[in-house]
Amino acid sequence: MNKDTAIGIKTLSGGVTAAEGFVAGGVVCGVRNSGRRDLGLLFSEHECTSAAVFTRNTVKGAPLLVTKNAVEVGDVRAVVANSGYANAATGQRGLENAHEMRALAAEAMGIEAWEVAVASTGVIGEHLPMAKISTGIEGAAAGLGRDGAGFAEAILTTDTRTKEAAVQVEVGGKTVTVGGTAKGSGMIHPNMGTMLAFLTSDAAVEKKCLQETLSAATDRTFNRVTVDGDTSPSDMAVLLANGAAGNEALTMDSPDYPAFAEAVEDVARSLAKEIARDGEGATRLVEMVVEGAKDEANAAVLARAVVASNLVKAAVFGEDANWGRVLTAMGYSGASFDPDGVELWFGPVKVFENGEPVPHQEDEANAALAAGEVQITARLNEGDASAAAWGCDLTYDYVRINGSYRT
Amino acid sequence: MNKDTAIGIKTLSGGVTAAEGFVAGGVVCGVRNSGRRDLGLLFSEHECTSAAVFTRNTVKGAPLLVTKNAVEVGDVRAVVANSGYANAATGQRGLENAHEMRALAAEAMGIEAWEVAVASTGVIGEHLPMAKISTGIEGAAAGLGRDGAGFAEAILTTDTRTKEAAVQVEVGGKTVTVGGTAKGSGMIHPNMGTMLAFLTSDAAVEKKCLQETLSAATDRTFNRVTVDGDTSPSDMAVLLANGAAGNEALTMDSPDYPAFAEAVEDVARSLAKEIARDGEGATRLVEMVVEGAKDEANAAVLARAVVASNLVKAAVFGEDANWGRVLTAMGYSGASFDPDGVELWFGPVKVFENGEPVPHQEDEANAALAAGEVQITARLNEGDASAAAWGCDLTYDYVRINGSYRT
Repeated sequence: MNKDTAIGIKTLSGGVTAAEGFVAGGVVCGVRNSGRRDLGLLFSEHECTSAAVFTRNTVKGAPLLVTKNAVEVGDVRAVVANSGYANAATGQRGLENAHEMRALAAEAMGIEAWEVAVASTGVIGEHLPMAKISTGIEGAAAGLGRDGAGFAEAILTTDTRTKEAAVQVEVGGKTVTVGGTAKGSGMIHPNMGTMLAFLTSDAAVEKKCLQETLSAATDRTFNRVTVDGDTSPSDMAVLLANGAAGNEALTMDSPDYPAFAEAVEDVARSLAKEIARDGEGATRLVEMVVEGAKDEANAAVLARAVVASNLVKAAVFGEDANWGRVLTAMGYSGASFDPDGVELWFGPVKVFENGEPVPHQEDEANAALAAGEVQITARLNEGDASAAAWGCDLTYDYVRINGSYRT
Repeated sequence: MNKDTAIGIKTLSGGVTAAEGFVAGGVVCGVRNSGRRDLGLLFSEHECTSAAVFTRNTVKGAPLLVTKNAVEVGDVRAVVANSGYANAATGQRGLENAHEMRALAAEAMGIEAWEVAVASTGVIGEHLPMAKISTGIEGAAAGLGRDGAGFAEAILTTDTRTKEAAVQVEVGGKTVTVGGTAKGSGMIHPNMGTMLAFLTSDAAVEKKCLQETLSAATDRTFNRVTVDGDTSPSDMAVLLANGAAGNEALTMDSPDYPAFAEAVEDVARSLAKEIARDGEGATRLVEMVVEGAKDEANAAVLARAVVASNLVKAAVFGEDANWGRVLTAMGYSGASFDPDGVELWFGPVKVFENGEPVPHQEDEANAALAAGEVQITARLNEGDASAAAWGCDLTYDYVRINGSYRT
C-alpha cells in the first residue's frame, strides 16, 4: 500500500506551514476555559485551488454548511477554526455565528469572506461566545507566521497531542511539499470526512483534480479510522494548493499526478493513524489488514468492522488474543466472504485457518497485543486486493472521559 | 405498542415450563468450570410445531446449522443447550460434535435426533468437551420436571441473572400460555435472532403461522436490543407450540391470532428488555422511543442507533444529559429525517426543538439519567409510526469483563 520508496517521497517535520506560502497560528481565546489555544488561523499568501470533504451525518454543523458552499462556488485560501464548541444543532443563530466568524477572519486577513473556510469542534448544542471568538481572531491574525504547530494545537479537544505530517515529492521538475494537521479523539467514525483535517500544498493543482485527490485519499485514510463508531456532525477535511512550488498545474493526466496523489495520501494516512493512536482513552493503535480479497471495497468493510468492534477493542486492552471476536466482526460486517477460507494472525502468530483454530502458543499471540502498535491480519484467499483500517483499544479511560465530558 | 389491556393478556411467573406439557431442567456438567449449571434440556411431552430465527452473521456456529436444518425439514420438540463454549469456528469436528450432542439428547429423551434443537453459547473457537456433555445430558434427562428455572440458569454465560417471562391469553375459548427464557449479556446486537431465546406455548399453531409469529415478534423485540454492537454467530430464537391447551390450530386468519401473536411478542419483549438490562457491566436499562415517524422501520433504525452509540451509553453512565450525542447518532443512523423537525426529551425534560437547544434545568435532565430505567424520546413530527429500542450504559465493568473474558 505504501509506495513511498518507488515514488521517492521524503518525510519532513512540520504540518500545515511546511509547504511554501502558508502561514498559520493559534491563540488562547477562552472558548475552552482550559488555558490551551483554542482558536487558529491558516492563510495562504497566494490564491489557491481548494477541495473539501464533509460528514455524511444528516445532522451537520453550521460551519460545514458555510464552508461547503464556499468550496463549491469558489476556492478558499484560509481557514478559521475553534475548539470548545462545535456550533452544531444551534439553529439559525448558529448559522449566523458561523457567517460572522468567517467575516471577522476575512477582515483580519484582508481577504474576501468567501475565501475563508470555517470549522468548529467541541460540545454540540452550545452557541459560540462571539466576543471571545472576535478577540481571538484579531490576536491570531496579528501573530500569523510559520506556526503550523500553534494552529495544530488550537483545534484539539480531548486529543492528548497535536497531529501533524508533511512530505516532499518531485512534480514536473519541481519540489512540491504537502503538509497537514488533524484533530480527533472521540466521536470518530468518519464517513467521507474526519473530525477536522487541514492539508496544504505548494503544488499547483487544478480544482477538479484536487477534489479527486482528496476524496480518494480520504476513502483510504480518514474513512478507515474508528475510535468509537460515532460519526460526528462536524467532520471536515480541507486541502489547499497554492502553486508556490512553480510546477505546471497538475491534472489527473499529468505524468507526475500519481506522485502528488500518493504524497497527499501519505500525509492523510499519517494523520489518520495518529487520530486512532490518540483515540479517547486509548493505550494502543490497532491496524487491521485484510489481504487476498476480491476487491478493495470489500476488504475495507471487513477491516473497519474489526477495528470498530467493542469486543475486539476490549480484548486488545486486556491483551487477550480472542480471535473469535475478530472473525465474528468480519461475519457481521456485511461484506461477503467464505469464513472457511480465512487465515487469521495476531502479529506473526497464525490462530485460524480452514475453518478451525490453529494450535498456537496463547502467550505468544497475547504478546502481539501488548505492543503499542497491534497488527491483526486476515487473508481471505479470494483475490489480490487488500485494505487496512485503524482503531484503538477500549479502556476504562474511554468510559471515564465520555461519562463526564461536559462537566 | 403494548396492547395487553385490550387483548386481556395476563402476566404469569415462570418461563419455558409455564405452558402445559413442557418439562425442563439444567445440571452442572463442567464445561464452564464455574460450578454453575451449564447444560440444559427442554422437552415437550406432545409433538410440536416449531419455528426458529437465526443470526445473519456470515460466521455461523455449528449448532445453528444443525438446528436450522431440523426446523426447515420438520419440527423439533426438544432443546439441548450448553454454556461455556459456543462451538463456533470449530470446523468439521465442531459440526460432528453438534450432531453427537443432538443424538445423545434424543436418546436420553427417547425421541428422534431430528426432533432436538441444539444450542451452544460461550467462547468461540474451542471444541466441546464431549465426555462432560454426554454425562450432563444423562443427568439432565433423569431430572426433567417443571424446572424452567434450572434450564434458564444453564444457558447463562456472563449474564448476572436468569431471564424468564410468561403470559396467558384466551384463544378459541381456551386458555393458552406462552413462556420463554433467554440469555445474553455481551456480543448483543442481534440481527434476526438473539443470543439464545426459547419460547414455548401450549397453543396449537400451524407451522407457517408459528414462523410468521416468531419472525414478527423478533423484529420488534430481540432485534431492537443492543449491548455492544457486536452481532454474535450463535444468535438463535426457537418457539415450540405443543397444542396441549386444546384450541383449534391457529392460522394467520384465526380471529384470535392477534391475541396469540401479541402474547408471543409480549414474552419476547420482556426477555429482550431483560437482556439489555443485564448487559455486560450495565447499571441502567435505556429505552429509546422514536415517535411521529413516517414508518416503523425508519423509527426502529433511529431508535437502535441511539441505544447502540458508545457516546450515548457513556453519557448515561455518567448521568450527563448530553442530547447532542442522541441527535448525532440519529444523524448517522442511515435513516432519513429532518433534524430541524425533531423534539428530544430526557425523561420528562424537553431539551431540543426547532433545530435549537431548549433552555432547561440541566440537573433535571441529568436526574432522568440517574434512574434504573432511562427513557429518551424523539418526536419526528413526520407521521404516526413509532418504535422502541433497548440498550444499556457503557461502564468500566464492560471494559473489565471483556478485557479478561477468557482468562
